[in-house]
Amino acid sequence: MRAFQLVEWQQPPELREAPVPEPGAGQVLVKVAGAGACHSDLHIMQAPAPGDDTRLPFTLGHENAGWVETLGPGATGFAPGDPVIVYGPWGCGLCANCREGRENYCQETAGLGGGLAGHDGGMAEYLLVPASRFLIPLGSLDPRGAAPLSDAGLTSYHAVKRSLHLLGPGSTAVVIGAGGLGQMAIQILRALSAATTVVAVDTDAGKLETAKRMGADEALLSGEQAVTRIKDMTRGQGAQLVLDMVGVDPTLRMAAQMARVLGHLTIVGLGGGALPVDFSSPPHECSVASPYWGFIPELIEVITLAQQQKIKMLVEHFPLERAGAAYQLLHDGKIQGRAVITPQV
Amino acid sequence: MRAFQLVEWQQPPELREAPVPEPGAGQVLVKVAGAGACHSDLHIMQAPAPGDDTRLPFTLGHENAGWVETLGPGATGFAPGDPVIVYGPWGCGLCANCREGRENYCQETAGLGGGLAGHDGGMAEYLLVPASRFLIPLGSLDPRGAAPLSDAGLTSYHAVKRSLHLLGPGSTAVVIGAGGLGQMAIQILRALSAATTVVAVDTDAGKLETAKRMGADEALLSGEQAVTRIKDMTRGQGAQLVLDMVGVDPTLRMAAQMARVLGHLTIVGLGGGALPVDFSSPPHECSVASPYWGFIPELIEVITLAQQQKIKMLVEHFPLERAGAAYQLLHDGKIQGRAVITPQV
Amino acid sequence: MRAFQLVEWQQPPELREAPVPEPGAGQVLVKVAGAGACHSDLHIMQAPAPGDDTRLPFTLGHENAGWVETLGPGATGFAPGDPVIVYGPWGCGLCANCREGRENYCQETAGLGGGLAGHDGGMAEYLLVPASRFLIPLGSLDPRGAAPLSDAGLTSYHAVKRSLHLLGPGSTAVVIGAGGLGQMAIQILRALSAATTVVAVDTDAGKLETAKRMGADEALLSGEQAVTRIKDMTRGQGAQLVLDMVGVDPTLRMAAQMARVLGHLTIVGLGGGALPVDFSSPPHECSVASPYWGFIPELIEVITLAQQQKIKMLVEHFPLERAGAAYQLLHDGKIQGRAVITPQV
Amino acid sequence: MRAFQLVEWQQPPELREAPVPEPGAGQVLVKVAGAGACHSDLHIMQAPAPGDDTRLPFTLGHENAGWVETLGPGATGFAPGDPVIVYGPWGCGLCANCREGRENYCQETAGLGGGLAGHDGGMAEYLLVPASRFLIPLGSLDPRGAAPLSDAGLTSYHAVKRSLHLLGPGSTAVVIGAGGLGQMAIQILRALSAATTVVAVDTDAGKLETAKRMGADEALLSGEQAVTRIKDMTRGQGAQLVLDMVGVDPTLRMAAQMARVLGHLTIVGLGGGALPVDFSSPPHECSVASPYWGFIPELIEVITLAQQQKIKMLVEHFPLERAGAAYQLLHDGKIQGRAVITPQV
Repeated sequence: MRAFQLVEWQQPPELREAPVPEPGAGQVLVKVAGAGACHSDLHIMQAPAPGDDTRLPFTLGHENAGWVETLGPGATGFAPGDPVIVYGPWGCGLCANCREGRENYCQETAGLGGGLAGHDGGMAEYLLVPASRFLIPLGSLDPRGAAPLSDAGLTSYHAVKRSLHLLGPGSTAVVIGAGGLGQMAIQILRALSAATTVVAVDTDAGKLETAKRMGADEALLSGEQAVTRIKDMTRGQGAQLVLDMVGVDPTLRMAAQMARVLGHLTIVGLGGGALPVDFSSPPHECSVASPYWGFIPELIEVITLAQQQKIKMLVEHFPLERAGAAYQLLHDGKIQGRAVITPQV
Repeated sequence: MRAFQLVEWQQPPELREAPVPEPGAGQVLVKVAGAGACHSDLHIMQAPAPGDDTRLPFTLGHENAGWVETLGPGATGFAPGDPVIVYGPWGCGLCANCREGRENYCQETAGLGGGLAGHDGGMAEYLLVPASRFLIPLGSLDPRGAAPLSDAGLTSYHAVKRSLHLLGPGSTAVVIGAGGLGQMAIQILRALSAATTVVAVDTDAGKLETAKRMGADEALLSGEQAVTRIKDMTRGQGAQLVLDMVGVDPTLRMAAQMARVLGHLTIVGLGGGALPVDFSSPPHECSVASPYWGFIPELIEVITLAQQQKIKMLVEHFPLERAGAAYQLLHDGKIQGRAVITPQV
Repeated sequence: MRAFQLVEWQQPPELREAPVPEPGAGQVLVKVAGAGACHSDLHIMQAPAPGDDTRLPFTLGHENAGWVETLGPGATGFAPGDPVIVYGPWGCGLCANCREGRENYCQETAGLGGGLAGHDGGMAEYLLVPASRFLIPLGSLDPRGAAPLSDAGLTSYHAVKRSLHLLGPGSTAVVIGAGGLGQMAIQILRALSAATTVVAVDTDAGKLETAKRMGADEALLSGEQAVTRIKDMTRGQGAQLVLDMVGVDPTLRMAAQMARVLGHLTIVGLGGGALPVDFSSPPHECSVASPYWGFIPELIEVITLAQQQKIKMLVEHFPLERAGAAYQLLHDGKIQGRAVITPQV
Repeated sequence: MRAFQLVEWQQPPELREAPVPEPGAGQVLVKVAGAGACHSDLHIMQAPAPGDDTRLPFTLGHENAGWVETLGPGATGFAPGDPVIVYGPWGCGLCANCREGRENYCQETAGLGGGLAGHDGGMAEYLLVPASRFLIPLGSLDPRGAAPLSDAGLTSYHAVKRSLHLLGPGSTAVVIGAGGLGQMAIQILRALSAATTVVAVDTDAGKLETAKRMGADEALLSGEQAVTRIKDMTRGQGAQLVLDMVGVDPTLRMAAQMARVLGHLTIVGLGGGALPVDFSSPPHECSVASPYWGFIPELIEVITLAQQQKIKMLVEHFPLERAGAAYQLLHDGKIQGRAVITPQV
């Protein structure tokens, strides 16, 4: 089969021939419908060579959906042809975190899955999934469109869900960065609570328009005025939740000014910034945290929201031959929503 | 001033002259805009005489809103003319429950407030409120329409809020009884989570129509088929939350069959029934509880929902002279929504 | 190998020859060190024949520990010789509950495991476990003594853990029934909070003595005086948590009188009683629930407590030949703590 | 009466004559038994003059206990002679936070109380308390010894309590800084969970000895080895909770290395440091927050723990004349535990 692989660190990935994997005991072979191209892949491609080169080559693509092709001996719960989405971070299944479905925080594997260094991912005709517990049935959803729900969807959902207890009637949630993940976060906030005021903040007026269509109650251009406006809307208290989907120094600084006492400030974006936390900033007992991906039970809920048509992702499809081009467009900021590689086309 | 008072147990209340109260230290005099007539008042009127008659006479009306008239010495936070709603159950303010705003569960007073045996309520031109912490600002809401939010609204809100953690995407909530409180519960479920399927169950097809207008996704006539339908909708698991707003034996029995493992079954209605709980019914670890009214911070959230126009109560107004007639209509099941006495008209 | 099997409903089980199972893909064969004899087995033995006889015969013993003997293909995380305890209720691993480690509430299998109708249990030389996720490492604990931790330990632990948020400084927890499970609950309450007053209630003065040695602060004979004493100790409010480890009508009635507003009343005992819940009894918003067994992550915590020597179970060992005699003694109330069958001796 | 007052910014406080206050409506006059001298007072004394001098002079002492002397009109719940501790941060009582007893986070007053700029505190013979809700009965506790519980005790308690859900069996909590607050935190961790391993870290071997006497399971000298040891103890995962009672850059850096994924890192110390939070440090989804003081219902729990003799503070008493000397000793690091001014002696 064809597979889009990273062969050398800091070199462009290549489309190569690779053998179709055979599922062993408990494993499942998935025929890939769609594999999302994610910003974090650009980081992986550009990463300096780690000492250990044994992890190369590997197939890219950690945001995958498709159809069950073959079940290895002892693999249960699915039948060939079932449309499924693949939970990305593959844990050991036996540590304390994995046993609650928090395999992104596996204490053994650090939540690395297919498409991340050393494990073959979904930018190929077939993907070998190590256990059926990483599959979630898609029901009536089209696997080609659904793929990004497993990362862009789940990451946004997790960031909102962990703070949902703060979002009662009269509360305010701010989403900084109204790109793909931010748009998803806005829709999720809307679906989970009609009683929260959702504010989008971005430097790009066009994205703010999109944010409003996605359900944001207010859309503000980044800067001092945005901080002032949020203070005004909240009688000087700030927002219960601020999600920074960008994560550079200026957005983090803005986030700290927008958050309130006892609130949450969540760093989702991989922008490389750092927020200094001291006794008085961000406000007292506002918790700052940077989550990574999400939990398996949460992915079931994401799929449910998508089936209810409460969340939707803008997707652009590319055949496997154009995977390299897709990453180039992503790198250049020319992808609306998410680029998805469709190896069966 | 005129006041509608219970003078003898098991006798009809009377409209009488009473002195306008003087607010003492920390107290607040409220000019009553509206005082809701509640089913529980019918219970109080008909209750057999307790040994102690010293609690008579007292003015009825525990669901009140109006305008601040005068502040006693040391009372702060409000100014004459402010539109306010009155939190009903008046606690001591100093026990462990009161200190968290749970004055309905005061360990000293058992959460009795004005309009309940021994304390003058709001069916009079003025109401004496013992402390400003029992007042919540109404902002732009009309106090005549808002009065029922302090009991019908708050009781429903509390019943939903305490189970909100169960109501993620794909969850199901059942409201048995689509009268005043049930309609409120449906709207609150809708406002707090767009991702939950809300099912109304009633014996009255007309009320089921109303329930759908209020936001119920499904409306079912009471009985075996309703149980079967809910099992079907939930792949055999039952609902995460069942609110019984009626509370007679048949609705409780139905509720137990509709609830799921790890769910909640909440008895809100004062129908006088009892639900036998044993090892296997309701399903394992489904918690059964009967709350009473709600918490002060929750009333703030109820008012916020009303200001956002996410909840609304059908109200019929009656002047003070017609208070007796209002209770008669209520007793006869002829009130749509809530009867509110308006002493200033 | 020898296996102690139920061959016909309502007939005594028999010691028979059975083939040593072969572990298939993902399965694990465990050499049994100890298999606890549980009251609930007596229920199973005496149960009237269900229509379907295909579930007979099966080996008894759902409370098991031992050493890993062989791993089937694809089974990971353990090596032959590892001492392990077996989580009892075997779920599908893929439903929403299983994915959080709540396999006792599996939506497919209803949490039936080995030793329960239709699945071979641990009263044999070897036990076939369907997946390595049902095994927890025992470390330095002796598997013969540890077996009862998987049911008596886990059931008590779960009942306490779900209510732990109620047990702050100054709180009171009552354990009705100071037999095996009750003693375990007392030790767990003690280990999880030094700040809670733990009260044991029983009809047997000897068991109350044991309860005090296990860490109970007070030990009361069942009856009206026990209720009065608990009210006095709690300034009239009642206990935050009442665990009924007996579950007959009189203990449930007593439990309802001992619990407080906003408390928990948990039915653990299989005594066959029922508690009528209505608007005013038990106290308002006291949640009544009857859990079944516990969660996998909780079993890890139980093992940790045992390794720290904070909980300990009195165990009497019986060779496989005396399994029938052990059940007879259990039936006659002559077992102190727990009877454990040790097939290797 | 005599009062120890700050008269000018950046000048030593003075012992001066001041009139005994008269309690107005709802207010309570307390005869001061003890007023703790706190490090944060040194900050206040040395603070550069704010523009507004109208807040001077004021009596120092925000950590107070004594006996009720007189109740103003309408003040209820206490009688003259009652021993009481004073909750320090005085809120408005009416904002959303105050209504849940979180007056330290009052949205109107920012939780400033007596002894803080502009409000007279307890270093005088009498203290005027604005409302009886700021008083907690001490029962049998000596008010002279109890005073520090209202700040040193409550601040430590709050920092532990908010993270208690992380501290199950097998968990690890680290307390950096084993001075007064750290010792309190160690005792509280011990009292609230016998199942958590408590580790003290300090630069001073003598304080580590004290920490062990207070209940720490391990005591480690600050530095790289302490980080290594904690990683070893936790199989490489780090601690569930790290409390930094110092708050300078080096302790914060150490704290970030000691904490685990999904853990909490809480900045309690006012050392003036800042912790940079980015995508990968501290570990993913480890929440960083800096709380301020604690909640009223928590102070009730602190008093309960002290009554149960589960927490105890080393106290050195000073008459009012020696208040200046006490602060000098505090400044020089020569106070063991807490210096308490006793105005009645």
